[in-house]
Amino acid sequence: MADAFEELGFAKVDHARAARCGRPEVIFCEGKTPAEVTAIARRIVAASGYVLGTRASREHFAAVAAELPAAGYHERARCITCGAAAPSGSRHVVGILSAGTSDLAVAEEAAVTLAAFGQRTVSIFDVGVAGLHRLLARIDEVRACGVLIVVAGMEGALPSVVSGLVDRPVIAVPTSVGYGASLGGLAALLGMLTSCGSKVTVVNIDNGFGAACAADAILRLAGEGTAA
Amino acid sequence: MADAFEELGFAKVDHARAARCGRPEVIFCEGKTPAEVTAIARRIVAASGYVLGTRASREHFAAVAAELPAAGYHERARCITCGAAAPSGSRHVVGILSAGTSDLAVAEEAAVTLAAFGQRTVSIFDVGVAGLHRLLARIDEVRACGVLIVVAGMEGALPSVVSGLVDRPVIAVPTSVGYGASLGGLAALLGMLTSCGSKVTVVNIDNGFGAACAADAILRLAGEGTAA
Amino acid sequence: MADAFEELGFAKVDHARAARCGRPEVIFCEGKTPAEVTAIARRIVAASGYVLGTRASREHFAAVAAELPAAGYHERARCITCGAAAPSGSRHVVGILSAGTSDLAVAEEAAVTLAAFGQRTVSIFDVGVAGLHRLLARIDEVRACGVLIVVAGMEGALPSVVSGLVDRPVIAVPTSVGYGASLGGLAALLGMLTSCGSKVTVVNIDNGFGAACAADAILRLAGEGTAA
Amino acid sequence: MADAFEELGFAKVDHARAARCGRPEVIFCEGKTPAEVTAIARRIVAASGYVLGTRASREHFAAVAAELPAAGYHERARCITCGAAAPSGSRHVVGILSAGTSDLAVAEEAAVTLAAFGQRTVSIFDVGVAGLHRLLARIDEVRACGVLIVVAGMEGALPSVVSGLVDRPVIAVPTSVGYGASLGGLAALLGMLTSCGSKVTVVNIDNGFGAACAADAILRLAGEGTAA
Amino acid sequence: MADAFEELGFAKVDHARAARCGRPEVIFCEGKTPAEVTAIARRIVAASGYVLGTRASREHFAAVAAELPAAGYHERARCITCGAAAPSGSRHVVGILSAGTSDLAVAEEAAVTLAAFGQRTVSIFDVGVAGLHRLLARIDEVRACGVLIVVAGMEGALPSVVSGLVDRPVIAVPTSVGYGASLGGLAALLGMLTSCGSKVTVVNIDNGFGAACAADAILRLAGEGTAA
Amino acid sequence: MADAFEELGFAKVDHARAARCGRPEVIFCEGKTPAEVTAIARRIVAASGYVLGTRASREHFAAVAAELPAAGYHERARCITCGAAAPSGSRHVVGILSAGTSDLAVAEEAAVTLAAFGQRTVSIFDVGVAGLHRLLARIDEVRACGVLIVVAGMEGALPSVVSGLVDRPVIAVPTSVGYGASLGGLAALLGMLTSCGSKVTVVNIDNGFGAACAADAILRLAGEGTAA
Amino acid sequence: MADAFEELGFAKVDHARAARCGRPEVIFCEGKTPAEVTAIARRIVAASGYVLGTRASREHFAAVAAELPAAGYHERARCITCGAAAPSGSRHVVGILSAGTSDLAVAEEAAVTLAAFGQRTVSIFDVGVAGLHRLLARIDEVRACGVLIVVAGMEGALPSVVSGLVDRPVIAVPTSVGYGASLGGLAALLGMLTSCGSKVTVVNIDNGFGAACAADAILRLAGEGTAA
Amino acid sequence: MADAFEELGFAKVDHARAARCGRPEVIFCEGKTPAEVTAIARRIVAASGYVLGTRASREHFAAVAAELPAAGYHERARCITCGAAAPSGSRHVVGILSAGTSDLAVAEEAAVTLAAFGQRTVSIFDVGVAGLHRLLARIDEVRACGVLIVVAGMEGALPSVVSGLVDRPVIAVPTSVGYGASLGGLAALLGMLTSCGSKVTVVNIDNGFGAACAADAILRLAGEGTAA
Repeated sequence: MADAFEELGFAKVDHARAARCGRPEVIFCEGKTPAEVTAIARRIVAASGYVLGTRASREHFAAVAAELPAAGYHERARCITCGAAAPSGSRHVVGILSAGTSDLAVAEEAAVTLAAFGQRTVSIFDVGVAGLHRLLARIDEVRACGVLIVVAGMEGALPSVVSGLVDRPVIAVPTSVGYGASLGGLAALLGMLTSCGSKVTVVNIDNGFGAACAADAILRLAGEGTAA
Repeated sequence: MADAFEELGFAKVDHARAARCGRPEVIFCEGKTPAEVTAIARRIVAASGYVLGTRASREHFAAVAAELPAAGYHERARCITCGAAAPSGSRHVVGILSAGTSDLAVAEEAAVTLAAFGQRTVSIFDVGVAGLHRLLARIDEVRACGVLIVVAGMEGALPSVVSGLVDRPVIAVPTSVGYGASLGGLAALLGMLTSCGSKVTVVNIDNGFGAACAADAILRLAGEGTAA
Repeated sequence: MADAFEELGFAKVDHARAARCGRPEVIFCEGKTPAEVTAIARRIVAASGYVLGTRASREHFAAVAAELPAAGYHERARCITCGAAAPSGSRHVVGILSAGTSDLAVAEEAAVTLAAFGQRTVSIFDVGVAGLHRLLARIDEVRACGVLIVVAGMEGALPSVVSGLVDRPVIAVPTSVGYGASLGGLAALLGMLTSCGSKVTVVNIDNGFGAACAADAILRLAGEGTAA
Repeated sequence: MADAFEELGFAKVDHARAARCGRPEVIFCEGKTPAEVTAIARRIVAASGYVLGTRASREHFAAVAAELPAAGYHERARCITCGAAAPSGSRHVVGILSAGTSDLAVAEEAAVTLAAFGQRTVSIFDVGVAGLHRLLARIDEVRACGVLIVVAGMEGALPSVVSGLVDRPVIAVPTSVGYGASLGGLAALLGMLTSCGSKVTVVNIDNGFGAACAADAILRLAGEGTAA
Repeated sequence: MADAFEELGFAKVDHARAARCGRPEVIFCEGKTPAEVTAIARRIVAASGYVLGTRASREHFAAVAAELPAAGYHERARCITCGAAAPSGSRHVVGILSAGTSDLAVAEEAAVTLAAFGQRTVSIFDVGVAGLHRLLARIDEVRACGVLIVVAGMEGALPSVVSGLVDRPVIAVPTSVGYGASLGGLAALLGMLTSCGSKVTVVNIDNGFGAACAADAILRLAGEGTAA
Repeated sequence: MADAFEELGFAKVDHARAARCGRPEVIFCEGKTPAEVTAIARRIVAASGYVLGTRASREHFAAVAAELPAAGYHERARCITCGAAAPSGSRHVVGILSAGTSDLAVAEEAAVTLAAFGQRTVSIFDVGVAGLHRLLARIDEVRACGVLIVVAGMEGALPSVVSGLVDRPVIAVPTSVGYGASLGGLAALLGMLTSCGSKVTVVNIDNGFGAACAADAILRLAGEGTAA
Repeated sequence: MADAFEELGFAKVDHARAARCGRPEVIFCEGKTPAEVTAIARRIVAASGYVLGTRASREHFAAVAAELPAAGYHERARCITCGAAAPSGSRHVVGILSAGTSDLAVAEEAAVTLAAFGQRTVSIFDVGVAGLHRLLARIDEVRACGVLIVVAGMEGALPSVVSGLVDRPVIAVPTSVGYGASLGGLAALLGMLTSCGSKVTVVNIDNGFGAACAADAILRLAGEGTAA
Repeated sequence: MADAFEELGFAKVDHARAARCGRPEVIFCEGKTPAEVTAIARRIVAASGYVLGTRASREHFAAVAAELPAAGYHERARCITCGAAAPSGSRHVVGILSAGTSDLAVAEEAAVTLAAFGQRTVSIFDVGVAGLHRLLARIDEVRACGVLIVVAGMEGALPSVVSGLVDRPVIAVPTSVGYGASLGGLAALLGMLTSCGSKVTVVNIDNGFGAACAADAILRLAGEGTAA
């Protein structure tokens, strides 16, 4: 086990991670100071050529941009990117569906993450189950995707419906959208975990980033086939 | 306030209830002895002409039938009935939808209750959201109903979908069907309460009886219109 | 399935909804920008003649009013309305009862919604179970209603009591009023779900809007009878 | 601190407790063997003249009765008694109200405990809030009591109503009667804790014994006044 | 049932409450506007001679004081008082114990309430179970009280210990003091409900007012004895 | 939407599912009678050539085997199989890791499901994080898998560790193994959802079947690449 | 990392564990067959000279004893032992305190475990906080211990009190003894975690074994000092 | 029981605590005014020579420093110290491990506390289980410690892994770092309580101070051995 990392005192930047896990470290900015985020970001760009920061505030971005002028800020997704991975060359695209307009921030975090990883995405928003015809109107686009990321708050029913309509892996992302009995997203989370759709797997509440990482790992596995 | 009741010592049989609430008392048998259920049932039949017992075991039924030979037992619904109300004459029928075969017991408790109250029902079973075409295939029947009772366990998504397709009151009944994160029906309950379908109201887990009472009250209100 | 909707990019305005569900879309304003709310509101008014926005802030209203001068703001209910449906012509009125003065915001959301839908309401406030005589003093008014919406926080006992006194559908709305063991409204919600009143159905915590939609659907069903 | 106790190895019988706390130890039988219960019971009778065992099975009773022939078993209350305290001489009686017939076991545990402590009780059963007239019909009896113990499952609303009608301490006992959202009595417990009735205090679910102990302590305090 | 109340539109002031429940209405100020609180306070003073407002902010007080110059504000207890009941003449004093300095606000709400009701109290603060000798040093004072109100956050163990040392009713008040696993006071609440001390009853988290009402009702019952 | 299904009265067998979702229906046997399971199984075999039943008891198997002599029973996995899909031809194998010997039932449900779907698996059991060297000793085998299913109860830490060591999709399955604070598997579930491993997705507690379905969908996606 | 283990197929017996963690593996018998337990036990005895099995049924013991005649069964503790470690030679003894007689099973699991590990213990049972004098009567014995294991159900207050009286590490063990609001031991667990006693650490509900392991590790650390 | 304390009115400063519990009182500053903290701090320094305040704001520090110029503020740990205990002379050092950079505040509270108590510590930060090589790279340092404090948020898996690698007491500290299903630290807490590592004990969420107290008590016990 000869993996290497760089000691910053307050953090250990894991440069061997790309080899071990396929992607360089991503910075979870919440709870870190702008200076800490910047110091980590600089080292990752130096080693890997690009960097992604999630849960980033405007303050985080200002500090990073002062050091890395190529960096950009994705407001709704609350992400910082600087560069991106080479295009994956995958034949497949990731479909990102969301139930309501309030779920957009989470859906866009997934989209920005996949773009940073060189994957192609298609976004299909506001197709919640209370108006099924909106989803059915775009069902061919949905079926053409290789992997589906399905984002929903409230009762979180959309992944079950999607899973019944397609023959692809479905990654469900509950959101904290809702009030009262939605319990900060727990209702949607429990609904997705007990989904009657058998191909559905679930990530944490509001974790668009995690869903994107799982989708990316699936497409890279599928891509090996084509590459070979 | 001159309402009357009959004192049995262990219970007070509420004979004025029919006037006040539209229906005679129904016996919740669980936690009562067969002898207690029988004693109450006899008095209600004497006063109202029919009786309904829910959550009844075979032992409850045996005791009741010894005294009231006209009584019948509905195995899956776990109900005892003896007689029924006069047909309501309502123009409307209650649609009872269930998501999976495991939800049948609860759906049938609703059906037996409505029959005892003189209402007409149509049952549409096994139309869960993971196979939407099964529901869509019978959508005209669904739309023809005056009230919908929608029974579902697991993630409880069916009422949301139904509510988006019809212009009728939807009463959602979560069931305890499921395991793990279904938390004994809580996942379905929370899902239904946070439903994006705006006409959906909810009753307790496995409470087919309560859903039927609410549907009955709605049809009686609607029936007054026709009668007038 | 030929329903139509209008694509705004961030949302799909569902113009076929009125045909399918009886009422045009209502805007849940929380989590949408004033500009988004305004854009959606304009299109709904154009198609349906009136619009309702719930959970609206003063900022939402200011943006909408700049475009739709006929719009009004209901402060306590946090609703925007612009026009209203034609009077329903229903023989029935909806009774809106609330337990304490702190539950008024939710009760008024229900009242504003029903007014927007052309239904008549009567409000009976501050009749909580700790002072029963206040409720009993107005029991004739309560019994004259076609549907009851009963709003209560704390232990949420009022719907049980009301259900025992009337022969009508009772829609219970728990509120987040309370502290400590009220758990943000969960105590009232659980109490209403386990109500010993058999005609009680329940909506989400603070969801005065949903209760109004259900009451409206019931009255429209009852109205068909009279119209026929 | 010179209090004395007797060491049995598996237990320490606290003979000074009567002096310190007003009443000798009571045996919580669940989780103890019949032999252990008998050994403790014998010593308490020897020291205090009477003994009470709660949560006792028929097996516990058989073992105790073999040694203490004067012992009796209260089936529904699941209590063993052998003798009783001298009559308290209190001018006041404890009212024990219960909402449904299924709550009787808990109500009777309270009644048996108070009898063992030499207090007088009056039982008023099956007066749940869904049929208020049953309670109002006996309101004079209720108001004549010195302390009220109010036992209820499901939504647990009865203590709030009683508290609004009387000028006496109200001790609320939630029961585990119910299903689904009653969560084994938690719904009733939370409802009672958030009661809008200001004189209501609460004990654990199904703890009729604890409610009786509190009522006994109150009457003994009140009794000192008369004695003086 | 001839009880009277005064209709303010947003509230019904319950003037018959003193006769029915022993004490005039108390105003729960949170969630009411200063103007509403003032309007209600004026009427209660007019009818009963004194008034108490709990959960009152400085803004509430300013509005009330402008109209009722005799009103005073109890900062830590967050209470407004204007006048007080006549001294109860009770032989007994209420002991108010608190575990930590952070529990003082709740303990003082109880003390202010009892003073407004004309009862005498003694406060014994900072006697938590981690330093038992502080409690034991004042045990004679504790034992001299007629009723004990025991306020504690964190694990809420103090009522159990007190109950084992005295022969008096113990009213336990959990507080929201703590962090992490204290779950906003739920840990203390559950601990008190499962207390091994048999005379302990419990009120809602931070509900010093409710504990005082219960203690007041107990002392008034005991006082009848002396008066007779 | 021309999908077909067969109506059995108590169930609708969804024959179009294979086309729509890639796999024929699987029977969740729990809560169905042996006769119902057999009736459904017969029709699925007739239409698809093989069938899988999960959560099957010995009684379910006996009934199925009487009709379908080729059926076999997998005791620990509680599965019935009759035939299997053609080998998928995938270049990839699914690794099934489990933390403790008590997690084997769930791990084997996943293995049986994947075998029925024609996928190859390798099982690596008893490699929990309290003895890391057991996992590290087999790390090359783990890294050679295309997808990892990681099964763990108690604190559910294994998926996080595995995710840090490999560059593949990781599907985490919490189990109900544990006691006390494991809360029937909730501790493991929450742990996996909050995993610091970014490629981890999660299924319901004890849902080895669902994890296998997701892994199968991933391998079929990857297989399309090779086929092309 | 050259640690060794023995592969049994269904389990990996970790022979290097003694070197790494100070103690050989202990068998958690629940969920394993008697044959599996026996196979593992035989190998551990062969390698380490003694073995301990926890959560063992009489059936587990019968199978083990047939192979290892020296094995013994501790009924109340539900443990199998065969041999024991050499006496630790520690100057310190572990005090095991329990609050009630119902907590004995957990306390004895701790005692049996420590005996198997060659440590000395003293048991002080039935010293719950509702009768403080029982604890204070033995306070010198308590203070003479090197480490305290404090076992309590219900409200779990004993560790807080003990921690305030001694200058030693206190390991708190919540038990599932109780009912209603004890929530299967959660109330005690939360109480111990929020203990105002600063030296208190906590293990899982009913985990007497874990507490013993922690105490053993502490004494071995302390023992190194003396040995040196 | 002749222990002494000093009465400040709002608090009782427990001067006998050092004798009884080994360390003087520590001030939990949250919820106390700067003036209260200062008054207590002055008295403790006078009696014991040093003081520690936890959960202290900059405002608390400013007030203390005005009176005690030697006081210092530890920003990230939110602690005030003034002086320190004499070096313990322990042969052992406490290892403080943390999983992520966001856990540093809690880890440093533990470090500051131990320094104030005269104990030596070594900090090993950012060694979470998703990058095991970072931990393994420093395993010799970890194994050289006498006690391990392991701080982790999210799924809280680090203590389990550490416990499997070392032969020392492990004190686990869950942190509130995380979102969604981390439930404010409950996921980490439950994970640590159900850890498969048998020597792990747990303290409250974010309670670095409590972990340090337990470690200090262990080292003082071990130190007695060397001293003798």
